[in-house]
Amino acid sequence: MTGKSIGILGGMGPLATADLFRKIVTMTKAGCDNEHIRIYIDDNASIPDRTAAILSGGPDPVPAMADSLRKLEACGADCIIMPCNTAHYFLPQLQAMTRVPFLNMLEAAAEACARRFGGKTAAILATRGTLATGLYQQALAARNVPCLVPDDGEQGALTRVIYEGVKADAAPETYRADLEGVLAGLTARGADYFVLGCTEIPLAVQLLGLRQPMVDATTELARAAIRFCGYQIKEPALPQ
Amino acid sequence: MTGKSIGILGGMGPLATADLFRKIVTMTKAGCDNEHIRIYIDDNASIPDRTAAILSGGPDPVPAMADSLRKLEACGADCIIMPCNTAHYFLPQLQAMTRVPFLNMLEAAAEACARRFGGKTAAILATRGTLATGLYQQALAARNVPCLVPDDGEQGALTRVIYEGVKADAAPETYRADLEGVLAGLTARGADYFVLGCTEIPLAVQLLGLRQPMVDATTELARAAIRFCGYQIKEPALPQ
Repeated sequence: MTGKSIGILGGMGPLATADLFRKIVTMTKAGCDNEHIRIYIDDNASIPDRTAAILSGGPDPVPAMADSLRKLEACGADCIIMPCNTAHYFLPQLQAMTRVPFLNMLEAAAEACARRFGGKTAAILATRGTLATGLYQQALAARNVPCLVPDDGEQGALTRVIYEGVKADAAPETYRADLEGVLAGLTARGADYFVLGCTEIPLAVQLLGLRQPMVDATTELARAAIRFCGYQIKEPALPQ
Repeated sequence: MTGKSIGILGGMGPLATADLFRKIVTMTKAGCDNEHIRIYIDDNASIPDRTAAILSGGPDPVPAMADSLRKLEACGADCIIMPCNTAHYFLPQLQAMTRVPFLNMLEAAAEACARRFGGKTAAILATRGTLATGLYQQALAARNVPCLVPDDGEQGALTRVIYEGVKADAAPETYRADLEGVLAGLTARGADYFVLGCTEIPLAVQLLGLRQPMVDATTELARAAIRFCGYQIKEPALPQ
C-alpha cells in the first residue's frame, strides 16, 4: 500500500462508472485485497448532461462536477479520472480549481490508437457533444492518426444506443441493429477500427458480443490510472 | 434527486465492491443518469483481513474501516453499507462512531431467505470468520429458518474459492470443482438452497454459470439500500 490513490469523478453515467471501476480492479496485478489500489468514487447522479450543455444551452455541469472534485480531494485522491468523454470538454476549468492532476481519457485513447494501429483509419464513436468539441479529432491528428466520424444518420443511431439503450438500461437487442448499422456504415467508408469514445459504448459492445477491432477509451483510462498510481497491469481474467 | 445517498465502505474485496455498485445501479429504476442514486465509495484496499482478525489474532481492521467511515460521512452519505459479510462482526463498533445508519447485509439476506424459502433448509456459504461469529446462524434462527454449514473439508474448499480464486482473480475453471463439490455435499446433507454469505461467492457463481437456488446477500443489500434511499427497484436487464 505504498502506491497512490485514484479519485473517480463519476455518475456520467453510473453504469459507465461501475465499468471503469471494475476494469481498474481486474487490470491491477494483485494477489489479495491489500495489493489493490485505493479508489474513491463519487457516483454523482446530479451532474447535468454534458452534450446538452455544449450544444443546446443546457445547464452548466461544472458546479456539480466541482462539488464531486472537492469531495474526492478531501478524501485524499492523488489523481482524478472521469468516465465520460464529453465531460473532458470541461476538464481545463476543473483542473484550474485543484492541484490534484486529472488524467485525460481522450489522450490515453489516442495514444493507444497510435501505438496499436499506427496510420490506419480510426472511426470515432462518441456523443454529438464530444465530436462538436473536436477534442478527439485533435488528439488523433496530433499523433498522425487519420479518422472518420459518423454521418448524421449514423450519429442519430449512436445517440439512441447511448441514451435510449445503455443509459436507460434497455435490453441490448433493442439497440443491436442501430449499433451494427453504424459500424457497417463506417467500415464501408474506410474505417479500419473503432474508438469507443463514449463510456456507454463499451457496455453496449460487451453486452452485444461485438468483436470488431476497437480501442476502448475506458480501458485505456484504467491502464493510465493504474500506471500513475505505481501499480502493475495484468491482462484481465474477466471479459472486458 | 430528492432521494438519499449511499456510502459504500468497500475494498473487502475490491471486486465484490464493484459487484455491489453495479447491482445497485442496474437494480435502480431510472431512465437516465439523473434518476440514479448518488453513491460515494471508498474502495479501501488497506483494511486488514477480517477473518484473520476474528480467528487468529490478525491486525484489527476497525481503524482502517473507521477512516473510510469518516470519509463517507464527510461526503454526506445518508447510509453506510459494507460489501463484506465478515466485516459485519465489527458493525456495532463502527455504528457507535457515527449517527449515519449502517444497513445490515446479513439481516437483509436472512429476510430474503424467510420470504422466499420459508421453512426450507438454507446452507450458509461464508468465510470461517463469519461462521465463527454465529451472526448468520442467529439471523436465520430469529426468522425460523433452518440452516446447515459446510463441514471442515467443504469449508477448506470454500476458503480456496474465496482467497485463491476470486480475490486472486484466478481463472474461474481453477475453482469450479471446489465450489461444485461444496454445493453437492451440502445438498446431499439436506440443503434446499444456498445463502451466498461471502461477497466473493456471487462472483464465483456468476463466472461459473451455476444455477442452484440461492439468496445472494450482495443483491439483498443492494435492494435494501435502494429502498432506504427512496428509489424504486427494477429487475435488472443485465445478468446478476
